[in-house]
Amino acid sequence: MKYSQSFIPTLREVPTDAIIVSHRLMFRAGMIRRLGNGLFTYLPLGLRSFRKVEQIIREEMNAIGSLEIKPTVVIPGELWKESGRWDSMGEALLRVKNRLGADFVVSPTAEEAFTALVRDELSSYRQLPISLYQINTKYRDEVRPRYGVMRGREFVMKDAYSYDADETSLEKSYQDMGRAYRRVFKRCGLSVISVKADSGAMGGSGSEEFMVESEIGDNTLLFCKNCDFAANVEKADCKPDYSAVSSASTPPVEKIDTPNVKTIEELCSFLKTDAKTFIKTLVYRAVKVELQDAECEEAFYAVCIRGDLEINEAKLCALLKAAEVSLASEADVVRLTGAPVGFAGPVGLSQLKVIADLTVTAINDGVTGALVKDLHYKHVAYGRDFQAWMTAELRTVKAGDRCSHCGGELYEKKGNELGHIFKLGYKYTKSMNVSYLDEKGVRQIPLSGSYGIGLDRTLASIIEEHHDDAGIIWPLTVAPYHVIIVPIKYDGAVKAAADKLAEDLERLGIEVLLDDRDERPGVKFNDADLIGIPYRVVIGDKNLASESPKVEVKRRSEKENRLVELGKAAGELREEIMAELAEMNKRL
Amino acid sequence: MKYSQSFIPTLREVPTDAIIVSHRLMFRAGMIRRLGNGLFTYLPLGLRSFRKVEQIIREEMNAIGSLEIKPTVVIPGELWKESGRWDSMGEALLRVKNRLGADFVVSPTAEEAFTALVRDELSSYRQLPISLYQINTKYRDEVRPRYGVMRGREFVMKDAYSYDADETSLEKSYQDMGRAYRRVFKRCGLSVISVKADSGAMGGSGSEEFMVESEIGDNTLLFCKNCDFAANVEKADCKPDYSAVSSASTPPVEKIDTPNVKTIEELCSFLKTDAKTFIKTLVYRAVKVELQDAECEEAFYAVCIRGDLEINEAKLCALLKAAEVSLASEADVVRLTGAPVGFAGPVGLSQLKVIADLTVTAINDGVTGALVKDLHYKHVAYGRDFQAWMTAELRTVKAGDRCSHCGGELYEKKGNELGHIFKLGYKYTKSMNVSYLDEKGVRQIPLSGSYGIGLDRTLASIIEEHHDDAGIIWPLTVAPYHVIIVPIKYDGAVKAAADKLAEDLERLGIEVLLDDRDERPGVKFNDADLIGIPYRVVIGDKNLASESPKVEVKRRSEKENRLVELGKAAGELREEIMAELAEMNKRL
Repeated sequence: MKYSQSFIPTLREVPTDAIIVSHRLMFRAGMIRRLGNGLFTYLPLGLRSFRKVEQIIREEMNAIGSLEIKPTVVIPGELWKESGRWDSMGEALLRVKNRLGADFVVSPTAEEAFTALVRDELSSYRQLPISLYQINTKYRDEVRPRYGVMRGREFVMKDAYSYDADETSLEKSYQDMGRAYRRVFKRCGLSVISVKADSGAMGGSGSEEFMVESEIGDNTLLFCKNCDFAANVEKADCKPDYSAVSSASTPPVEKIDTPNVKTIEELCSFLKTDAKTFIKTLVYRAVKVELQDAECEEAFYAVCIRGDLEINEAKLCALLKAAEVSLASEADVVRLTGAPVGFAGPVGLSQLKVIADLTVTAINDGVTGALVKDLHYKHVAYGRDFQAWMTAELRTVKAGDRCSHCGGELYEKKGNELGHIFKLGYKYTKSMNVSYLDEKGVRQIPLSGSYGIGLDRTLASIIEEHHDDAGIIWPLTVAPYHVIIVPIKYDGAVKAAADKLAEDLERLGIEVLLDDRDERPGVKFNDADLIGIPYRVVIGDKNLASESPKVEVKRRSEKENRLVELGKAAGELREEIMAELAEMNKRL
Repeated sequence: MKYSQSFIPTLREVPTDAIIVSHRLMFRAGMIRRLGNGLFTYLPLGLRSFRKVEQIIREEMNAIGSLEIKPTVVIPGELWKESGRWDSMGEALLRVKNRLGADFVVSPTAEEAFTALVRDELSSYRQLPISLYQINTKYRDEVRPRYGVMRGREFVMKDAYSYDADETSLEKSYQDMGRAYRRVFKRCGLSVISVKADSGAMGGSGSEEFMVESEIGDNTLLFCKNCDFAANVEKADCKPDYSAVSSASTPPVEKIDTPNVKTIEELCSFLKTDAKTFIKTLVYRAVKVELQDAECEEAFYAVCIRGDLEINEAKLCALLKAAEVSLASEADVVRLTGAPVGFAGPVGLSQLKVIADLTVTAINDGVTGALVKDLHYKHVAYGRDFQAWMTAELRTVKAGDRCSHCGGELYEKKGNELGHIFKLGYKYTKSMNVSYLDEKGVRQIPLSGSYGIGLDRTLASIIEEHHDDAGIIWPLTVAPYHVIIVPIKYDGAVKAAADKLAEDLERLGIEVLLDDRDERPGVKFNDADLIGIPYRVVIGDKNLASESPKVEVKRRSEKENRLVELGKAAGELREEIMAELAEMNKRL
């Protein structure tokens, strides 16, 4: 392919909103352009790499026997009403009414579409297990899309869904996917962090997130300095810490005047004590709670935690099986606790159910709000002075906490999620009435799993990991071209040699970009570095004129170049490239 | 690939709404399933053929130097407002407001997205010509989607857009596309009808539609029995027919009482004369008329045509450069003509501009409404008794009319449009302010063209053309698999032979479906015929047991089978298949 005919509009400038490296380089290298807020057009160079990532994913899905299908992007709203997500999913779901007044969604994920298909087609245990996937367009109405294609509104995902007869089969489907994902990321040249979580909420189910480290990551990850523990902060547990326990017998509860003292910090300095002795009490509003038999639209809870810790709202949400939790409004706090914000406490609280973090159950001489302005209680003991309606592990784990496995110190990193494999259990198969007849003719509900990889993010993450100041350094497997040929001047003998080498390489199955532009060599070298083609072959008069004509071969990832005989260049390059591709694509 | 693991849910029954063959067969062969009204999921077998059509199109686009890009499916509404189509496109355009109140469309076509990109990137004549394409999801909110994927709401299109400096360059881009389209359809095994039209409206521009004949076609096509004239009825002209001309001198206009006589038929029998002597006058409402300097939201016109003919509304629309034309409401007719519907006429009509079809200008002794209930005029002569504000060729051509080229008789067929190439001229580049600097540094506007192929329709049309009572008969190039191996019983020596043959063929690059199911041979044969795999290899005990073991090879398109030595089957099949693929894929 000739450079002049390939529409690669490289840029020196960077759009002001491009903060992260991949966004800057994808723009500068002419891989993408902005079409709207959070919407991007892939230009030819970007699309070539995109399609390679797509093909790697497709091959690895096919290799584990997952079957590709293609539902629509616009999905009937009725399916989302059946699953319950029409209501439970927030405003990120783009809902549309068509001209006849029918509801649709522009698909942000496809559990509904796949489950509806399987519901119609599944009748017998003999059809199980089945694993289906698509590589298709998705839309999520992000309020603040940013970082280029890393967090766009429209994106492409591979999403797969497995349907299995029992836990053993689901476990196999899940493990197969995990292996396929590891192969995908390896072939893309990506170092991923695997973050596992056993979210008990779903009946012994499991989940694994494939993260790449990133300063601007959406996710906070915790790692143990001692063992291989890694977890998303949303789900991380740590070693219980009962350091607030006081073994002396506790005097009776006593009121203390705390005029204009509302925050924990103010209280600490006012009472000259440690935040660990406080029982912090927060009023939460939960929406669509499905707890025990009860199912209610809105409910309020007093959630207590030790004063130096924070509530993990994801854990609270999971505990309550709620669609959403958030701090109650000031008015609701006053109405429900009888006191202004800052004086809530579990003692004598009648209008709210109390949920206590496990750390609170260890406090037997604590301080807490007295449900009256400017008043607190001291000498409060859990069990003696109040009981919680529920107790649970609700704290947000943070750097410095101790590993729940080995007690080692935890530290934090930011990460972006590229892939997620997840056992759904009966979640959608139950709500959408999927069933089959087992060996005995008894109707059963299949288990399922959900497995996604974001293609755009994967592509951007490759650039985040493989670049230098001059531009992208593509791994061979996903490079838009394997070789760029740069004739010093595209004319005469140099042109003839460049044309022939390009032709020879292409015939050998190597993808070549031939820089035929009438530009200074410096401009061509800069562009070659910027767009990151793995091999650069420079052809100039001087090296051609020698008795045995030579060309200069340089790897993008290396500083030094080497001279190769013109006549042998095609063969040598092919051998080197094919060997490296084979190595990268090798089964793990 | 083993049949049991390939999710091909074949059916004997057909959904009641499946009227056409391709819809029925795609359902029965387990290629598609319905997800919603006009929305379909491609299952693995269907998607395999779909991807082959996609790849053929991609190869032919690349071969003419068109570059693939990928804009989003959800497009900012502001771009559609710039082009004017936010308003002018009807309700088929799915408009969405996102959570922040911003307008979007789910793309039904992509002139806006491509033109916006080129506007930002184009600066110099040296960048021209440029040809870009996408293969992407589209949505059109059809009121009555039907015929399966032939007229669905969501579908995939290849759409390309060229940008050229001058007419010569545009003509080349256009011709290149035409050639590429002919190659695509040939490679897909499709017989297409090429329908050309010089729509003068766009300044000497051209258009060519690629149609397949179909009983349920959206389009009425006219062909000449004598020459190679072919045209869409929407644009077809025919030889002028002035048979109503009367050479005798015409008496003065005379009023005639026509109590309760309103239709042309009633008038004919009442006056005992021929419909050709009537000047039929219809009041039309036109929306967004852009005529001469005038541009108005709504305008009404009296459109006259000879009594035996019909107005072609597409021609009227083009004449008025209107977004839409439709018959005026009864109230508007009364208000504007002073008489009930049925008594409009051009004589003495003051409130409406009169547009006359050319046939009317030849009437010099006609009958028409007198703008009063129950009154008509006779002896009306064009030019003497009324003048038209505009005259034009507005008639709908029909079977029996005479060819405008050679005078031969025209006949009709119904057709479905698979592809369309179309010179846009300055249409979008002007409205969206695209420009570049020419050799002299003068700012110029590029010309452009728009070129589309519907993938789903193309796939369905292949089935319409290639099937028999038993099922699909895939052309090799687009078959989901090349060979189906049917072991009479998948067991023992037969199983071993079947497995080995499948392995050998796959190693040779042949795509094989191995029917490993525990079903009766009859069921397997029926399914093989239904899903239409081009080569069927039957392996049974009897043929295997002979001294030189044999298998039975049968082409889906032929009645007879032949015996082939087991040891030679893989090699022979490969040779035959590769030769046929090469022949079908050959350059035209």
